[in-house]
Amino acid sequence: MNSTLTKYNVLGAAPWKFLLLTATLLFSYALPAHADDHAEPAAVEAEAGPVDDYNALLEAQGEYAPAYDFFTTSMLWTVIAAALVFLMHLGFATLESGLCQQKNVVNVLFKNVFIISIGVITYALFGFNTHYPGDFNGWFSWGGMIGDLNADGGNTWGYGGLGLAMTGFGDFIFQAMFAATGATIVSGAVAERVKLSSFMIFAVLFVGVAYPIAGSWHWGGGVLAGMDFKDFAGSTVVHAFGGFGALACVMVLGPRKGKYTENGIKPIPAHSFPLAAIGVFLLMFGWYGFNGGSVLSAEPSALGLVFTTTTLGATAGALGAISISWFMLKKPDLSMALNGLLAGLVGITANADVIDVGGALAIGFIAGIIVVFSIIYLDKAKIDDPVGAISVHGVCGIWGTVATAIFADGFDFVTQLKGALLVSAFAFIFAYIVFSILKAVMGVRVSEEEEDRGLDISEHGQEAYSS
Amino acid sequence: MNSTLTKYNVLGAAPWKFLLLTATLLFSYALPAHADDHAEPAAVEAEAGPVDDYNALLEAQGEYAPAYDFFTTSMLWTVIAAALVFLMHLGFATLESGLCQQKNVVNVLFKNVFIISIGVITYALFGFNTHYPGDFNGWFSWGGMIGDLNADGGNTWGYGGLGLAMTGFGDFIFQAMFAATGATIVSGAVAERVKLSSFMIFAVLFVGVAYPIAGSWHWGGGVLAGMDFKDFAGSTVVHAFGGFGALACVMVLGPRKGKYTENGIKPIPAHSFPLAAIGVFLLMFGWYGFNGGSVLSAEPSALGLVFTTTTLGATAGALGAISISWFMLKKPDLSMALNGLLAGLVGITANADVIDVGGALAIGFIAGIIVVFSIIYLDKAKIDDPVGAISVHGVCGIWGTVATAIFADGFDFVTQLKGALLVSAFAFIFAYIVFSILKAVMGVRVSEEEEDRGLDISEHGQEAYSS
Amino acid sequence: MNSTLTKYNVLGAAPWKFLLLTATLLFSYALPAHADDHAEPAAVEAEAGPVDDYNALLEAQGEYAPAYDFFTTSMLWTVIAAALVFLMHLGFATLESGLCQQKNVVNVLFKNVFIISIGVITYALFGFNTHYPGDFNGWFSWGGMIGDLNADGGNTWGYGGLGLAMTGFGDFIFQAMFAATGATIVSGAVAERVKLSSFMIFAVLFVGVAYPIAGSWHWGGGVLAGMDFKDFAGSTVVHAFGGFGALACVMVLGPRKGKYTENGIKPIPAHSFPLAAIGVFLLMFGWYGFNGGSVLSAEPSALGLVFTTTTLGATAGALGAISISWFMLKKPDLSMALNGLLAGLVGITANADVIDVGGALAIGFIAGIIVVFSIIYLDKAKIDDPVGAISVHGVCGIWGTVATAIFADGFDFVTQLKGALLVSAFAFIFAYIVFSILKAVMGVRVSEEEEDRGLDISEHGQEAYSS
Repeated sequence: MNSTLTKYNVLGAAPWKFLLLTATLLFSYALPAHADDHAEPAAVEAEAGPVDDYNALLEAQGEYAPAYDFFTTSMLWTVIAAALVFLMHLGFATLESGLCQQKNVVNVLFKNVFIISIGVITYALFGFNTHYPGDFNGWFSWGGMIGDLNADGGNTWGYGGLGLAMTGFGDFIFQAMFAATGATIVSGAVAERVKLSSFMIFAVLFVGVAYPIAGSWHWGGGVLAGMDFKDFAGSTVVHAFGGFGALACVMVLGPRKGKYTENGIKPIPAHSFPLAAIGVFLLMFGWYGFNGGSVLSAEPSALGLVFTTTTLGATAGALGAISISWFMLKKPDLSMALNGLLAGLVGITANADVIDVGGALAIGFIAGIIVVFSIIYLDKAKIDDPVGAISVHGVCGIWGTVATAIFADGFDFVTQLKGALLVSAFAFIFAYIVFSILKAVMGVRVSEEEEDRGLDISEHGQEAYSS
Repeated sequence: MNSTLTKYNVLGAAPWKFLLLTATLLFSYALPAHADDHAEPAAVEAEAGPVDDYNALLEAQGEYAPAYDFFTTSMLWTVIAAALVFLMHLGFATLESGLCQQKNVVNVLFKNVFIISIGVITYALFGFNTHYPGDFNGWFSWGGMIGDLNADGGNTWGYGGLGLAMTGFGDFIFQAMFAATGATIVSGAVAERVKLSSFMIFAVLFVGVAYPIAGSWHWGGGVLAGMDFKDFAGSTVVHAFGGFGALACVMVLGPRKGKYTENGIKPIPAHSFPLAAIGVFLLMFGWYGFNGGSVLSAEPSALGLVFTTTTLGATAGALGAISISWFMLKKPDLSMALNGLLAGLVGITANADVIDVGGALAIGFIAGIIVVFSIIYLDKAKIDDPVGAISVHGVCGIWGTVATAIFADGFDFVTQLKGALLVSAFAFIFAYIVFSILKAVMGVRVSEEEEDRGLDISEHGQEAYSS
Repeated sequence: MNSTLTKYNVLGAAPWKFLLLTATLLFSYALPAHADDHAEPAAVEAEAGPVDDYNALLEAQGEYAPAYDFFTTSMLWTVIAAALVFLMHLGFATLESGLCQQKNVVNVLFKNVFIISIGVITYALFGFNTHYPGDFNGWFSWGGMIGDLNADGGNTWGYGGLGLAMTGFGDFIFQAMFAATGATIVSGAVAERVKLSSFMIFAVLFVGVAYPIAGSWHWGGGVLAGMDFKDFAGSTVVHAFGGFGALACVMVLGPRKGKYTENGIKPIPAHSFPLAAIGVFLLMFGWYGFNGGSVLSAEPSALGLVFTTTTLGATAGALGAISISWFMLKKPDLSMALNGLLAGLVGITANADVIDVGGALAIGFIAGIIVVFSIIYLDKAKIDDPVGAISVHGVCGIWGTVATAIFADGFDFVTQLKGALLVSAFAFIFAYIVFSILKAVMGVRVSEEEEDRGLDISEHGQEAYSS
């Protein structure tokens, strides 16, 4: 140790003093350690009798005991699926930051850390009990903070039976991971010019208030549940919800500076395609939890079908987008291929549990075609969506919902359309009003100088990359 | 909303009209909603009797009911393993793009999106039923498109019993994720100069036709199954298959321009080591599904052993490659460390379920040494493989297969060698012929100008990075 | 094939000869293939009787048969959790490399590949049996290499019962993934100036020797287990252990050149925030295995609670750090948001199975505040920790341990503090002594010229990025 080292000493004294202190501490522990009353390792401790501990666990289930092993497996799947959906937020973060310009990357990442955090916490504080209000008028109910969801049988088969084979906390955490998705979708569409503080307020309201209300209509037993509307894992109530909220925000916000000029549309290229590709693959990986977890148990027939249709929808979407964009743009376009894969995933999300192999391929392939046209059309309409979120999640969310009636048996086209439009309209109106108020009160857009300079420096004083 | 905003209005009318429309829509829903006949939340709905729904599920299993919980757990593992193997494709995409030059990154990513998509879809259209033809002559059979794999007991224990404890769709999706691997391996070896359209045609044939045929010899009950050839999760039938297909393509294609000059071998450095490292770690993560899922059930003894030997093989491979490359190159080489880890994984893949701890360490460590020599030797032989795919997957695939006879009990060296050579030779010949035909008909290589400029601009008109 | 192609021929002969050779080989196989004695596909083979194979499996469990399905599910969770913890090492690698300067990235990645490799292998060679010594004096015991952990009932419920519902190999591999964490934490703190070879020796000793000894005090039934010390998944025995080892090493090593000047502290910005963000999200994803797997079975009540509290702790940590750093630094700081999320995770790790919703939010939020102050304070004290590892893992590890007594019922504050200090002091002293000896014997720091040039070139002769 050289003589200048003491200046790094956080303890305000020579390291030797700390060594002395801890040595004394160690010694003081050493004495009682000679006694033999310390605990045995867990492995030994648990062996009271061969399977007595398991039998005790089983007995504690009471009348639900016969289903306990199935319940355990189903609950395991629920929490793993929740973790997979969590990872989708890394997918969104990397996709959005990859497709943006370098000068706005820190801002994108910051928004995504904030969104998942506030999404989960507002869901605990009021979202979950608003989303699943129990018996209510079908349109609106407001819930409070979650408590001990293991109590009152919340940790037994009695909580949800086969239709929801998980504990109360399992139910909460799986749904909580979905909650932030809506704001993440909006985040991509408004990227590169939105004012951070305004967006953060919007995100809290969109995720914390609007999402659980719209969700309660379908999954909480509200009006959509009452009209036999089918939306398996949320083509409408998650994706179209986010996509049409995004459309409203973009309309209020306006396009990025210099995007639409008198000389036509100026393409603003992705700053990092590897980052965007990482995002899309991670989103697909996480989607196995999003769709697979929506089986709400580990029932093997449904699980195998959902994994298969989800995969076929996604890959057919990529091929659809590759085909049509190669034909139209005369080049094999990577961003279209990536968006096509996502479009297929969004399209299959409404019906992954009821579609057959051919239907999954058709829905995905058409979604891949739709997304290319939608992106091109929106750009012509000067709706500036840097990541294609409105097309991928909004347009293909509606497509997937109505396609359910086309390609699967037993669903009504008009009902599907009505449900999709109801939720999309609600998201659009809610976002339009909230974002317009924010615009009037505090502004929703950074200044032109800040936009030029990039949000990373102007909002955060940080740069995404340095040498 | 400022006055210029209407020009962004995708609906061709003022936003207020849309608001009015949707408000009307909302109102039209509101009326029937007052009725009380909407569905209860799922949680409530399912509670007909305490465990009646589960008992009904169990009863539907008929004679298979006693194994239902084990079947459910095994099937859950199968689909999770499939998702992990899916993520390996992100691993391949990032590893390959990381090791390539910046100007070819978009091309690499595009190829990988295409390969996984076409791999899964051809597997649904004819691969799966070619791979598992049922009773056949042991060499060749051709299958059609999959249908409802849940039908005819495909969703019960009767589908595969303990040897394949999953539903038909579970079997399909797990195997489908493997299918694209062969072409992905080739993709890395031919990177930076292959013509995209030719490669895409090759990939369809290699993945869609050659892979399921070769696979049927071993896993479909063909000739290799008949001679007690051991290849647990595919050191030979997946990795050596891909590696020797890659060797053939590289021989037909030739090296990258400027790689082998009169003044010696010009190193072409990786454009992004972080990307490459992400790829290798993701590959190892996904390998737990690749090897672990190949247990084909959740049988605990096998699962614990396979996870342990897979991990020891990989880490010993990294240490082997670090040691030998440090000794030979006088520097601790990151790309060798990464390739060593992969080499260990490929080596352990043939035998992870039958090897012991010492054997796993030995096989991995030696694989790590072999891969370094192989990479150096191939470079001297002017076989230009930008990512080391031939050495990692081809050479170490054969090593793992024969090492099974050396380090595990009860396997015959000659049988192992014959099986490994048979599949490798088939892959080599198939790839050589197909790629040669493609070369004659449409060319397999971009022009020298395009290679100089990079495939991203010349093939896609896009760049991987921009500011 | 053009005439120059033969020079690429690795076989030293024209490709046609190889084709001929393999064709002959194929033909030689073809003859016996006409016999019909080849194996049937697995699916067919297994169907001796409907569930006979499962019943045989069950019978082999003997007295443990009643718990077999629960055991199978629990063991499946154990190995999946192990894979998730493995992925944390990619999280550490990307976080550390993202926060470092570009010139040291190869070095960071190399260290991380080495650490996970040596960590797993030393754990197999002596770590596991040192960590879980069985009956011992509570302070020190030394174990040998693992053997067949499936033998002697290691693959049945008898191995660990409900308290450790996994096979011996499951136990090993889950714990092995933890082992390397300590050195990874140190790696971040000493980055950008540590000498590679010295660090590698240190890592072997810290991970291979110190970690299992300290761990045996708590998880091996040693002194900490004897005093009812609570540390669920290792806030103290993993994170504070690593964090205080890191503090010792940084004190011995000194700060990066030019960091603390006469004109104040020079900030050294992260070279890639996307990489750092990927790291943090992957760490959180892997943490579900770290904490969730520490339930040591798939017991549904505990699993749902742990996933929920882990998520709330992390997200509250992010909000805590965002709030306080925005207030103090006047900017929404991305690195603080990321560190806050990790701080929340470290804080909740000691108590995730016993805390309630409010407690999880409080522990996380306060951890997020603590980490900001700690990072600022350590920087003022000239303890140069490029990634904030000491604050995140060391300081918040102790916070989480003592917070258990504050926010959960039934734990003693003094006991918690004593346990946290004991392990932290041991890690500090061990690291201080070992690193000081290494400093005296071979040096622990690169030369100033090497530091200026970057470790990538000076230690590895490689660069992280090239065009």
